[in-house]
Amino acid sequence: MSRSPVKEQILEVATGLMAAQGYHRTSLDDVLRESGAGKGNFYHYFHSKEDLGYAILDRLLGRFEARTLAPIFGDGARDPLGQVDAFLDEILATQRARNCVGGCPIGNLATELADAHEGFRQRLADGFERWRQYLAAALTRAQTLGALAPDVEPAALAHFLVASIEGAILLTKVQKDIRVMEHCVAELRRHLVPYRRPERAAPTSVAR
Amino acid sequence: MSRSPVKEQILEVATGLMAAQGYHRTSLDDVLRESGAGKGNFYHYFHSKEDLGYAILDRLLGRFEARTLAPIFGDGARDPLGQVDAFLDEILATQRARNCVGGCPIGNLATELADAHEGFRQRLADGFERWRQYLAAALTRAQTLGALAPDVEPAALAHFLVASIEGAILLTKVQKDIRVMEHCVAELRRHLVPYRRPERAAPTSVAR
Repeated sequence: MSRSPVKEQILEVATGLMAAQGYHRTSLDDVLRESGAGKGNFYHYFHSKEDLGYAILDRLLGRFEARTLAPIFGDGARDPLGQVDAFLDEILATQRARNCVGGCPIGNLATELADAHEGFRQRLADGFERWRQYLAAALTRAQTLGALAPDVEPAALAHFLVASIEGAILLTKVQKDIRVMEHCVAELRRHLVPYRRPERAAPTSVAR
Repeated sequence: MSRSPVKEQILEVATGLMAAQGYHRTSLDDVLRESGAGKGNFYHYFHSKEDLGYAILDRLLGRFEARTLAPIFGDGARDPLGQVDAFLDEILATQRARNCVGGCPIGNLATELADAHEGFRQRLADGFERWRQYLAAALTRAQTLGALAPDVEPAALAHFLVASIEGAILLTKVQKDIRVMEHCVAELRRHLVPYRRPERAAPTSVAR
């Protein structure tokens, strides 16, 4: 299925507008004017503004998974706690590159829409849940490998990681100070330390 | 200085409207219609919608300080780590009482306005900073009393606590599940455990 350049243009423009001013404040007229698309074009690809909003959210979630979650957590042969560390590095680097502007586009939509629109809330809940599952799977794998204490609940700890990262991005956006993000990431790394168990000696070192 | 009932009515109504639909979406017409105030009344008390927004934010921050922060952290004779525990209890109880609806009204405004309006961003940054200072002061006092490890940085840890609580409230609002908040609060309590030092023996027990 080939992608329509007009549809992509509408999505790209509307994503930018909604990131800057939110879902409700972005009118269809804004989207048409900024994208140069006609009303007929728009309704060929989307049933409504809500339908456009869902497509934007799906795209944001899909990109986050394809560009960040899957590359970092996808390789089941890598050290799982190293993957969590790499993920924290990536989140910090993103806020640094963005000069603490913009916050988390998914978190922004969640704040605006979780109580205002049940359809968006469900999609947002699924999106955060998918993110949490990547983290929980890495933590479970670490536990199986003996690198994480047996009394840790990976599901609960993963909720905390997702929530704390979202809060850190928000506070960094408010304070416009990357040190807030650095402090939070450092504390999240420290959070895992007491849960860690010394690595088992690798079989090769035993054989030598 | 006596408070005007009309001004209070405008503030109360506008606070509710902005909590439900955000600052930008709340029009002056909405506020006048819902409060029953006339335009002349409004402009007697507020210069503009922005001025009203500032008054609402000041009120939200003032209430949070007067009803939650000052009562819990105000008594310098109480165990400071016990105060942090009591604060976490309070935040969890609030989300439970609200059935995971509404999120943090200050965090909601922060998400909407931190990048869109520099005047609001500064006030929001000051508000979060004030909250952080209550936590940092309790952590510093705990360190002085020997209850917290000497290598802990109270200022950095307090940033993390504020951020993680904001994120936990947001994720709880999205998932509509109080267990998310419970998990996050439990992890925040666990976060402090490795930093804690055994209490010094109380002088009375030595004297006996």
